Amino acid sequence: MFASDALSSTAYASEEILRTLIPVVGLLAFSFVLPITLAMAGVLLILMFSYRQTIKAYPSAGGAYIVTKDNLGLLPAQVAGVALLTDYILTVAVSVSAGVAALYSAFGALRDYRVPIALAFIVIIAWGNLRGVRESGRMFAVPTYAFLISMFAMIGVGIYSAATGGLHHAAVPADHIKLGVGGSVGIFLLLHAFASGGAAMTGVEAISNGVPAFKKPEWKNARSTLMVMGACLGVMFIGISWLAMTMHVVPSDKKTVIAQIATGVFGSGTVGHVLFYVVQATTMLILVLAANTSFADFPRLASFHADDHFMPKQLTKRGHRLVFSNGIVLLSVAAAGLVILFQADVTHLIPLYAIGVFTSFTLSQAGMSVRHLRLREQGWRVGLAINGTGALVTGVVTVVIAITKFKGGAWAIMVLVPVLVFLLVRLNRQYESEKDQLTEGALEATSLPVLRRHTVLVLLDRLDRSAARAVQYARTLRPDELRAVHIAADPELADELLEEWGTLPLSKFPLEIVACPDRRIARAALEVVAEEVADGRTEVTVLLPRREYQEFWHRFLHDRTSDSIARALGVLPHANVTFVPYHLKSSHDLTRVLVPAPDAD
Amino acid sequence: MFASDALSSTAYASEEILRTLIPVVGLLAFSFVLPITLAMAGVLLILMFSYRQTIKAYPSAGGAYIVTKDNLGLLPAQVAGVALLTDYILTVAVSVSAGVAALYSAFGALRDYRVPIALAFIVIIAWGNLRGVRESGRMFAVPTYAFLISMFAMIGVGIYSAATGGLHHAAVPADHIKLGVGGSVGIFLLLHAFASGGAAMTGVEAISNGVPAFKKPEWKNARSTLMVMGACLGVMFIGISWLAMTMHVVPSDKKTVIAQIATGVFGSGTVGHVLFYVVQATTMLILVLAANTSFADFPRLASFHADDHFMPKQLTKRGHRLVFSNGIVLLSVAAAGLVILFQADVTHLIPLYAIGVFTSFTLSQAGMSVRHLRLREQGWRVGLAINGTGALVTGVVTVVIAITKFKGGAWAIMVLVPVLVFLLVRLNRQYESEKDQLTEGALEATSLPVLRRHTVLVLLDRLDRSAARAVQYARTLRPDELRAVHIAADPELADELLEEWGTLPLSKFPLEIVACPDRRIARAALEVVAEEVADGRTEVTVLLPRREYQEFWHRFLHDRTSDSIARALGVLPHANVTFVPYHLKSSHDLTRVLVPAPDAD
Repeated sequence: MFASDALSSTAYASEEILRTLIPVVGLLAFSFVLPITLAMAGVLLILMFSYRQTIKAYPSAGGAYIVTKDNLGLLPAQVAGVALLTDYILTVAVSVSAGVAALYSAFGALRDYRVPIALAFIVIIAWGNLRGVRESGRMFAVPTYAFLISMFAMIGVGIYSAATGGLHHAAVPADHIKLGVGGSVGIFLLLHAFASGGAAMTGVEAISNGVPAFKKPEWKNARSTLMVMGACLGVMFIGISWLAMTMHVVPSDKKTVIAQIATGVFGSGTVGHVLFYVVQATTMLILVLAANTSFADFPRLASFHADDHFMPKQLTKRGHRLVFSNGIVLLSVAAAGLVILFQADVTHLIPLYAIGVFTSFTLSQAGMSVRHLRLREQGWRVGLAINGTGALVTGVVTVVIAITKFKGGAWAIMVLVPVLVFLLVRLNRQYESEKDQLTEGALEATSLPVLRRHTVLVLLDRLDRSAARAVQYARTLRPDELRAVHIAADPELADELLEEWGTLPLSKFPLEIVACPDRRIARAALEVVAEEVADGRTEVTVLLPRREYQEFWHRFLHDRTSDSIARALGVLPHANVTFVPYHLKSSHDLTRVLVPAPDAD
Repeated sequence: MFASDALSSTAYASEEILRTLIPVVGLLAFSFVLPITLAMAGVLLILMFSYRQTIKAYPSAGGAYIVTKDNLGLLPAQVAGVALLTDYILTVAVSVSAGVAALYSAFGALRDYRVPIALAFIVIIAWGNLRGVRESGRMFAVPTYAFLISMFAMIGVGIYSAATGGLHHAAVPADHIKLGVGGSVGIFLLLHAFASGGAAMTGVEAISNGVPAFKKPEWKNARSTLMVMGACLGVMFIGISWLAMTMHVVPSDKKTVIAQIATGVFGSGTVGHVLFYVVQATTMLILVLAANTSFADFPRLASFHADDHFMPKQLTKRGHRLVFSNGIVLLSVAAAGLVILFQADVTHLIPLYAIGVFTSFTLSQAGMSVRHLRLREQGWRVGLAINGTGALVTGVVTVVIAITKFKGGAWAIMVLVPVLVFLLVRLNRQYESEKDQLTEGALEATSLPVLRRHTVLVLLDRLDRSAARAVQYARTLRPDELRAVHIAADPELADELLEEWGTLPLSKFPLEIVACPDRRIARAALEVVAEEVADGRTEVTVLLPRREYQEFWHRFLHDRTSDSIARALGVLPHANVTFVPYHLKSSHDLTRVLVPAPDAD
């Protein structure tokens, strides 16, 4: 389950390295793709050993946010968290786009519909996550193993064919690249290609987030899984790059590099065709699963931020199916926005990608190093050496990515992350200030004496049973003063009401008419109540009769002036708004009333 | 002001007659356009005299709805009203579309943008009406006179040129029509062409709606205006049809018939060009004004329906600028829908048009006839003869329109109107049933004794100053029983709360914890309160602490569970929900608090 994100990136990492090189140096690119892949595999190795340390140290949850917060403090944790959150969004956008690319590599006609298909994937994944579909291990295991098998089969057959001389160069379309033009191979270009391959590293941190999900002893099993996954990832990444090099596969807009390799390796026979479709199908599936992983990670990480009062509280709220619904919605909207903005094009998304995850790698490893220095547990020197190297290497890679991809789009992330961190800190200050205000002296405040006077104010729009209910309830409250007020937008109606009121046996309780020629009823109500609470010693209860309709559509036949009055009165302290319900029976269904109508006595 | 609607229809009536005839009979059409126009002018004459009667009988407001309701009853009035309402919507769609046609006849490049331009017109008119722009007489008078002058000038110059032999046939584009093919001229075709010209009659009823707006003696001035307007309309309609006939103007998609006539009559000199643009500009203006007239008529008529409880009450609600905002919005949305559906094409809209207005003419004239028979006032025999003839003729025209335009789209109106009337009657029954329930015994109910018990239930989510406020207020109410309840979605939080509560000096007032493992807090609250009111003799006041934030955006940082609780409790009788406000101060602006914070004493 944790592997899909990391493994899936092999579906586009080699291709992105080639896409960086080929336009500049032509066929010379094929000589560099393998060394660059090996360099990246080296980074992967360092990361794997670094994360072995993290898993042991944080057996419950060792995500970058927790590790950084624990060792470097809240502010660096915000940076690590936000960087990772942006990367989760990009994971969804990139994985879904690459999944759609796998699809249209098999069915070319679908290419024109890539944006709607990608959006449909996002909607389906989001829906599944909102429903809280329990991710059974099998649901993840089957596609993951299928992908591994099909990839290893492809690489294996490729090696065999190459050894027996059966593997030919792909037909390089002459109009696609300037063959042999070969510009100069600068160090910047190589670093840029290396940075493009960095996308393959995302997902490595996934296991450290979810150690408790493993069988006992958790941290040991998690470590083994990490090593196996890392090995698979490394082998596949190297294998695919080697095949791309050997076959001279040129990235095209119509067919992914993997698809071209599959075609070349499996040949054009019936069996070859079937295997080609299997590769495309498993690739698509693993990519969609990878996107799904972000739907678990993003909301959880966002809830960590929110728990620490750095993000809106709503993100901590679990729906009754226990998923963080708001985080899921936020992620879907952001990823969908990226898919639309970049037209589901992996190559255009890649420059924004990876910088976030490497930033969080760096902070997390630096945090681990600080931890070793602080705790000095057994073997801390080895640990420090490993995590220190990890922090250094990932830090260098982060800088390389930032510089080489800057123009291509990384600048956007480099602007966005600090801005978001600033906003989060601002938000945190607001929450803390609110909390201070709300908790300061709260316990003593519960025993504050009641206010000197209690006035009940019944706001009437007409004289019907709902108004009668409000009057009855008003008397229940036994206030010091009872007022009935009608805000008169229509003077004629007010006169009628006054006349009707005169016939009632409520002489000590006269109806006041407040003229409201401008029809701003809520404003007029606010003025009446403001006057009443002005002395600061009066508690006012404003009663709003409310007709409750049994059927949904009946509600829409009536305006909701009482709601706007309640909203307007919200600005006044000690103005307590009460809705007094009166239930209209449905003409054809009386059984819906949950509780029998009360008798007065 | 009242004339724009009626006069403006000359901008497209002749063209629509030709469009019906030419595809079937080719050039022969030009022999029939004038006779058909004259027949329609005859109908106009009858209508004018009929409405003279109405204006005298209903000097305050004599629209079809009022006249029909007064004489034939509420149900026929619904038919007349709904028919007229659909026609008002069509008036907006047709007028705006024809206005845009006048625009792109002058500036051909705008044709591709006719739908957005038409929608922009609707938005601007709706916005002006929502703002309640006071329609000064001059605002209407200037474009109306300008239109009259330019039309009469065009017709005058046309007659002069024809007399002096200077008026030539327009170059008939050979590919546009099968010249001389001339199918047989059936009676159905002629009636169909006649029906297409019927659109010119809409707006004739406008004056009878607004008699009180005239100078004293209102009904006399209204009558004179009606006759002058009718005469102008008749002369212009006949004049334009005559010119179209004389010049053999073939309707085209690029240039309206009026635009072609203007080009032909004024020639291609500089003066001719200027005059052509003047004609197009005044035509466009009068059409937009005609659409504007519907924005006064539709909301008023809808409010009549709503006043009689046949349409949602919201339609009677005037904004504080005294306009029926909801009616305006409804009309705009419906007209915009039609413009989009029919791509701002007048010819496709025309089959739906006119059937509504003729239905209401018929009912209104029939109503007048009944009135004469009933009241038998002086001269009732003449009146009966006039209105009877009016009813008969408009009835026949209605049938002709219904039959000849049935396939073209009139069927939609013939389905829609009865369905709408059925829904309106259904709605009316609902309103009446509600009214009965609400008013029956309402006066007596005001003196019902209060219920035996009053329980106050404070729903707490945490223990802060807002909760303390709620407790303070709860004690103000001096209830028979006071309960503090916490719905516990999180058991840990509940334990903390319970512990804090234990430290409070409120020993006689224990905190109850209601477990809510499924996190459906509103549902759990409903169950607690339902139990409390179940005996039917208890009045429950549910207090919901509500933190009121000073700044708009602070509000979005918190969820609104209390709102969903209040909504859920709406189903329970005698469950009165009170929001107890606690005001958080803004960190940088304390002056916004309207009323000073109260001191407790």
